[in-house]
Amino acid sequence: KQIVLLPGDGIGTEVMDSAKEVLNAIADEFNHTFTFSTYDIGGVAIDKHGTPLPDETTAACKEADAVLLGAVGGPKWDNNPSHLRPERGLLGIRKELGLFANLRPIKGFPTLLHASPLKEHVVDGSDLLIVRELTGGLYFGTPSERQNDGQSVVDTLAYTRKEIERIVDKGFQCAQLRRKKLTSVDKANVLESSKLWREVVEEKKAQYPDVTVEHVLVDAAAMKLITNPAQFDVMVTENMFGDILSDEASVLTGSLGMLPSASLREDSFGLYEPVHGSAPDIAGQGIANPLAMILSAALMLKHSFHLENEANLVESAVKAVLDEGYHTADLNILGNGQKVGTEKMTELVVQFIK
Amino acid sequence: KQIVLLPGDGIGTEVMDSAKEVLNAIADEFNHTFTFSTYDIGGVAIDKHGTPLPDETTAACKEADAVLLGAVGGPKWDNNPSHLRPERGLLGIRKELGLFANLRPIKGFPTLLHASPLKEHVVDGSDLLIVRELTGGLYFGTPSERQNDGQSVVDTLAYTRKEIERIVDKGFQCAQLRRKKLTSVDKANVLESSKLWREVVEEKKAQYPDVTVEHVLVDAAAMKLITNPAQFDVMVTENMFGDILSDEASVLTGSLGMLPSASLREDSFGLYEPVHGSAPDIAGQGIANPLAMILSAALMLKHSFHLENEANLVESAVKAVLDEGYHTADLNILGNGQKVGTEKMTELVVQFIK
Ligand SMILES: CC(C)[C@H](C(=O)O)[C@@H](O)C(=O)O
Ligand SMILES: CC(C)[C@H](C(=O)O)[C@@H](O)C(=O)O
Repeated sequence: KQIVLLPGDGIGTEVMDSAKEVLNAIADEFNHTFTFSTYDIGGVAIDKHGTPLPDETTAACKEADAVLLGAVGGPKWDNNPSHLRPERGLLGIRKELGLFANLRPIKGFPTLLHASPLKEHVVDGSDLLIVRELTGGLYFGTPSERQNDGQSVVDTLAYTRKEIERIVDKGFQCAQLRRKKLTSVDKANVLESSKLWREVVEEKKAQYPDVTVEHVLVDAAAMKLITNPAQFDVMVTENMFGDILSDEASVLTGSLGMLPSASLREDSFGLYEPVHGSAPDIAGQGIANPLAMILSAALMLKHSFHLENEANLVESAVKAVLDEGYHTADLNILGNGQKVGTEKMTELVVQFIK
Repeated sequence: KQIVLLPGDGIGTEVMDSAKEVLNAIADEFNHTFTFSTYDIGGVAIDKHGTPLPDETTAACKEADAVLLGAVGGPKWDNNPSHLRPERGLLGIRKELGLFANLRPIKGFPTLLHASPLKEHVVDGSDLLIVRELTGGLYFGTPSERQNDGQSVVDTLAYTRKEIERIVDKGFQCAQLRRKKLTSVDKANVLESSKLWREVVEEKKAQYPDVTVEHVLVDAAAMKLITNPAQFDVMVTENMFGDILSDEASVLTGSLGMLPSASLREDSFGLYEPVHGSAPDIAGQGIANPLAMILSAALMLKHSFHLENEANLVESAVKAVLDEGYHTADLNILGNGQKVGTEKMTELVVQFIK
């Protein structure tokens, strides 16, 4: 299997090394061959190539079986013009590779749940998956520009029916593999795009008779995620709503540093990245938490390579290491756990695998 | 003072009666004259006049000094076509009256804080004001329509620089009256409209040297509201971000049934409504909580009539009644408080005022 690594900026490079080590351990144990090649994206690509997404990066990803991405961005590039911002690389690669479905599983780790901002009885039992449309909507629509001599501005939320259908299908399919409940989030009382979205969900229902469907308005969803997150199984929504709600959901279980994500297209190809960012404040200190990146690699094993056992072993390893009380500086562990750095944490996961 | 009452649907009519009684008590005590006239909006207006916003309603509001609105909507009208949905009445009246600034203060009541989904040490000290742009952006932009034979759909997020300037000014002014911290929320790493928004905030800074300004991306704001709500004083943002974030924020303190809102234009005219909806499930039972509506009337006394003492008295009355343990069914009170209905609750507030 050909894997392209895009470490990106900040702690991205540090946690990417960890993922590679873990994948090498899996390859050894299960007799697989993973080959890695590394390319630039984000700020580092701006510095080296003058663009956040060099053509050779895109080309390499297109040839690969899967892509792992660290994180992009940092204060160094914050005042750059639009086309020279690290985030453009991220938006660009998603679009170029057709990664329309962003999966963000959110589940608490028992050892970390006490660090949740929510009361224990509120967050207890939460285990949800947000399926976010990733290549359409307001973040990609045109026009997106100043008008009238800079006196006004416009962005465009555009979707084709096909784009809505394929992400809604993905939502239903994910629900079928889980607890069979789909929550579709929209603003159908105001937006025309949401009305079409809701129509598509209603049409598709018949194809997935085993799945229970509910519609929730985005403002209500933002409330319910806090008051009763355990009510949700799979939540499917368009790009911007998904951006906001998935970040909101990511802090519920007290495990932000632990959350992986998968960005998929129709076939088995995918890009996998941690939900956390490039954390410029702690970059280069060897203290970054590599577990979200490692769990992203596990998602890759599962979704792109269909290596269920291997993925499960990685997930068990992470859980076991946490259960033993090992934690990185960002994790708030009860009792006298042992604080470790990025390398040691990676080593512990690798040891468990071997 | 001429006050137009728009009770609307569901519990809207019940809580509007309460507000009127409280305002009458204030008028008696302080020797003011408030005259009330009632008009239809929302579902009831659809039923009676075939439109969610009859012209006579708009005309009456334009003549008035302030407007109180109950709530609109209900399952009866949920499947109506767009232009015959109760929410259109709400969007329409905001636009017609030029109510560009929606103020949503969120502060916990000590007696209710235990009902917060957040841990006490997380929510403690939270006292924020969300200033939401209310008449521009994605909910009003055109085109908002199906295209290509229904195979695609588009909504438009449009702002003029002027529209951004006036709401940003409002945000700064609110911050000056409070703890002097302004958090501007945008998605400037992706949206052109957010870039202009951020530019305007940066330009305006100099005019309000006593206010500290920070920029937070909307996805990060959705997280921070949960992990550390007490860090915020005034949050200013565009329409849709404000819709989502203010609803998210409304559940943090366990007092959703208590939250008022004000929708203002440049002069002192305003429309005041509770944050909660029409609650069709409990309508007509006499158990609705009238306090958010009563507190909305207090906001009217303050913002539209500049009657600070009168407004403070209403707020103290509400607090006192709660402190005595009286509560409606929706409120989760510690210990053996006494549960009362809408009428009794109103009476208690009125008694305190007299
Ligand atoms: C960096 C930004 C463009 C990106 C997004 O909003 O899509 C990020 O917030 C994310 O959620 O992956
Ligand atoms: C009913 C709806 C149109 C409205 C809005 O989104 O503006 C409501 O959610 C609100 O926040 O007042």
